[in-house]
Amino acid sequence: LAQLERDVKAAKNAPIRVGGAVRFQYVYQDYAQGNKDRGGDVDFDLIRLDFNGEIGDVILAAQYRWFQYMEAVQKAYVGYNLSKFWQAQVGIINVPFGNLPYNSHNYFFSSNFYAGLEDNPETGANLRYRSEKWEWDLGFYKNGEQGGVDGFVSNRDDRYAYDPVGIRIAGEGIFDAPSEPMAQNNSWALRGARKFTLSVDSNLELGLSVQHGDLHNGSNSVGERSVLGGHLRYNKGPWELMAMASRYDYDLAQENEGVVMGAYAYFDTMPARATLYTLNLAYDLPVSWGPVTNLRFYDNYSLMSAKSGLSDDTFMNVLGMAVSAGGLYTYFDLVTAQNHPFVGGSMGVDGGDTNTRFNINFGYYF
Amino acid sequence: LAQLERDVKAAKNAPIRVGGAVRFQYVYQDYAQGNKDRGGDVDFDLIRLDFNGEIGDVILAAQYRWFQYMEAVQKAYVGYNLSKFWQAQVGIINVPFGNLPYNSHNYFFSSNFYAGLEDNPETGANLRYRSEKWEWDLGFYKNGEQGGVDGFVSNRDDRYAYDPVGIRIAGEGIFDAPSEPMAQNNSWALRGARKFTLSVDSNLELGLSVQHGDLHNGSNSVGERSVLGGHLRYNKGPWELMAMASRYDYDLAQENEGVVMGAYAYFDTMPARATLYTLNLAYDLPVSWGPVTNLRFYDNYSLMSAKSGLSDDTFMNVLGMAVSAGGLYTYFDLVTAQNHPFVGGSMGVDGGDTNTRFNINFGYYF
Amino acid sequence: LAQLERDVKAAKNAPIRVGGAVRFQYVYQDYAQGNKDRGGDVDFDLIRLDFNGEIGDVILAAQYRWFQYMEAVQKAYVGYNLSKFWQAQVGIINVPFGNLPYNSHNYFFSSNFYAGLEDNPETGANLRYRSEKWEWDLGFYKNGEQGGVDGFVSNRDDRYAYDPVGIRIAGEGIFDAPSEPMAQNNSWALRGARKFTLSVDSNLELGLSVQHGDLHNGSNSVGERSVLGGHLRYNKGPWELMAMASRYDYDLAQENEGVVMGAYAYFDTMPARATLYTLNLAYDLPVSWGPVTNLRFYDNYSLMSAKSGLSDDTFMNVLGMAVSAGGLYTYFDLVTAQNHPFVGGSMGVDGGDTNTRFNINFGYYF
Repeated sequence: LAQLERDVKAAKNAPIRVGGAVRFQYVYQDYAQGNKDRGGDVDFDLIRLDFNGEIGDVILAAQYRWFQYMEAVQKAYVGYNLSKFWQAQVGIINVPFGNLPYNSHNYFFSSNFYAGLEDNPETGANLRYRSEKWEWDLGFYKNGEQGGVDGFVSNRDDRYAYDPVGIRIAGEGIFDAPSEPMAQNNSWALRGARKFTLSVDSNLELGLSVQHGDLHNGSNSVGERSVLGGHLRYNKGPWELMAMASRYDYDLAQENEGVVMGAYAYFDTMPARATLYTLNLAYDLPVSWGPVTNLRFYDNYSLMSAKSGLSDDTFMNVLGMAVSAGGLYTYFDLVTAQNHPFVGGSMGVDGGDTNTRFNINFGYYF
Repeated sequence: LAQLERDVKAAKNAPIRVGGAVRFQYVYQDYAQGNKDRGGDVDFDLIRLDFNGEIGDVILAAQYRWFQYMEAVQKAYVGYNLSKFWQAQVGIINVPFGNLPYNSHNYFFSSNFYAGLEDNPETGANLRYRSEKWEWDLGFYKNGEQGGVDGFVSNRDDRYAYDPVGIRIAGEGIFDAPSEPMAQNNSWALRGARKFTLSVDSNLELGLSVQHGDLHNGSNSVGERSVLGGHLRYNKGPWELMAMASRYDYDLAQENEGVVMGAYAYFDTMPARATLYTLNLAYDLPVSWGPVTNLRFYDNYSLMSAKSGLSDDTFMNVLGMAVSAGGLYTYFDLVTAQNHPFVGGSMGVDGGDTNTRFNINFGYYF
Repeated sequence: LAQLERDVKAAKNAPIRVGGAVRFQYVYQDYAQGNKDRGGDVDFDLIRLDFNGEIGDVILAAQYRWFQYMEAVQKAYVGYNLSKFWQAQVGIINVPFGNLPYNSHNYFFSSNFYAGLEDNPETGANLRYRSEKWEWDLGFYKNGEQGGVDGFVSNRDDRYAYDPVGIRIAGEGIFDAPSEPMAQNNSWALRGARKFTLSVDSNLELGLSVQHGDLHNGSNSVGERSVLGGHLRYNKGPWELMAMASRYDYDLAQENEGVVMGAYAYFDTMPARATLYTLNLAYDLPVSWGPVTNLRFYDNYSLMSAKSGLSDDTFMNVLGMAVSAGGLYTYFDLVTAQNHPFVGGSMGVDGGDTNTRFNINFGYYF
């Protein structure tokens, strides 16, 4: 038995768990002639590594992703529980904003993601409070996850999440690399949410989020960025409803045709000011079909409106189903969108077509 | 004891095992003046990660590789055992063809590898049948592991295995990036093999493999690709004999000087049609010299003949030894070859010299 | 109990441990106007993976690093214990030189690192002897970790440690890519150190190191490289003192303005001959403040003098503190330096300013 005890001790797992994910996807785009002609394509999506755990009360949470066109850090922070309710985090951390962890149920997130307002890491510190009734998040961010406007990186648009990387000036194309760089700098975020237990199987959460910070071009401040958002989440048994309204404003000192955003090895443009509305409904259906244990049906709708300098709205509707089977989580998404990144358009130009994309993302998470 | 049981539960390993390999090699090339002058070079080869295991009956098998000049996915699929005999696989998977897993014993594989006919992953689905006597593999592949002809990747030639990436047109150099892109599309593969137990220590396997599919240039179909192969594997005690004959045919609608192949950050050319013959013999010798537990001696011979548009054959002979010592597997390979990639030549041009390369590949697998 | 024994066996850890590190840092540079204007920046530093362990008496030690501007191998070797005292290592291994493992206490190492004389991997073989009183290291290196002057790599300056990559010729800028490539080739290293136990809590180590090898430009030998060093380490209770003097000499056949060094996606220049002196003092203070268990205070001073062709010295002083808290190891470094890489200067030019950099490197090691 003493030997067995020693063996158990030796077999003890390392305190930091190395996990990850492997993903690939089928894509059919009605707006891409070659893809249609071939009946769609299957692409490798990514592999990623996750490091999670705790040594001597200090928490580590990190995730790094490799694509075939870039690699990017998703998070990399250390944390410490100050008390039962308070946690401090430092490093590459998500900006708390609206519905957490996601303001969506589908693989493409909501339109907020493409404006940098969903699952968006920056570099700084968060202070979190979590109790039965309240969630409070206060954050300060020195700069984006690429070290700011002049951080030393291979490509300014190799990012997991959309961030401002420049000022779009007249004469440039909407997908051009920016000739006038810009990045977030010394920003604050505050998020508060109140949770209500309405009945044995229904809950409501209402919250407000605000962000404010400087914009820097490498030499000087060139403006300010402000964001305001209100969110709602309602759960009743297998149903979930999320709603959110967000307004962002890049108050730039110089004339511009919008903000250059960078992510996924692409530069794109979005208006300097806009309002976003999202409405998401989901329904969970536990099943027992071979390895399949759950089906989630959802419809996620996003609208971007009141764009500065542009007259056409952006919208995206994702009607879909997510299938849980062991480590495999598969999204079947029918995406209909106009003026939307990843669906043949851009938020930064008028006159786009309404496009349809059918997407099956296979993701194995461990 | 209850505490011990809890500790054992906590010490349980994660269901997906994170493994990998680390490799480096000594290279001496009689056809490279600088390398000869220095008495050879030692290069870092790669590190790789392997993710293998099963959560809730759904299997994961993935492997990703980092070199100093590229990175590439080797496989990334999910699987499910439909019955004791049948397995379904979806993702980045090997095309079943000929002797499996390899049609060779040495570090360089056979010439088939360089024509995309050995250990070659594509993106699609496999259905496998394995019984004591029969092996059946049926596969359908949407496209190659880079998402097809217009998949979004950094470099079209950053691939683990050789794939067609273009049509070689008159006036281009044999190592040029293709001006006319092309990729496999909507392909089928079928492989059948019959296994015979001849005696207590001897076995025979005979098989046939066939592939057929479309070739696409991004807008349209530009031709068809067909492959046919027959293989034999005979084992008797420590001896193994493998033989294979393969014929491939790229039936292109336009005039061409061959097919542009891409892999290992290189473009190369091969004829649009050719026949390959391979003959491999190996002998295993278990030993007990310090950490060394096995020696494998082998000779692997490949011949590529009946090339369309070219008159000179390609051949490669690898005389070698592989040494097993703990996690370390070391190949000592004396390679003699003419018109062969990785040995100072190309399959797509006449008149190459017969070159010799001595290579020691140290690989630690875990 | 039999079931428990089986469970313990199944729970046994894999023989090769997959570990790593995640790091990010705050940087304030008084010589960078934009950085000052923003009050400093926070940058993602790296993630890295470590593979360590032993299968069948054969040891593996490997480390690979991903930055946002490059990736690089730090080590990748296999080892075998020939006896209680002797170990053989083959692969990407550190050149034994001076104080080991580091000739410094801070995040920036000593100036030796920037001259390729601290924690510098090459590709070859080491033979190590370790006893209570003696340390002997004999090494032979075919070439650098990028396969020598013509190794097949994406970028010659994507290296963890500084190595010669060219000859700096008249008319080139000090940060230019070299037009005349050059690399180390067929080099030898020998290091011997004697350890003295002076009292119960004090130890002294005295040692000598020497390196000699060829320099090759891809076609021919173009010179020789020689290095000589003497080191001292003295420990008494919580105190540690390190001192070292090193002389290197690139004896080049052609006229030059120094040696082109490459690392961290940068080319830089250093004189062909110079002498380096380092003096380091550290003091450990165990504490028990929440998760903080140790503070290390240190001052590390480096001087590079007697430069060929240049009249101004290089110096760097790092006054700092390292904080241990669980898996987190944080360096607070106040760096003052003149003509120094990473502190706004170069070793290869006269007339640089004395610059100050304040740096906090957060590193989580597991």
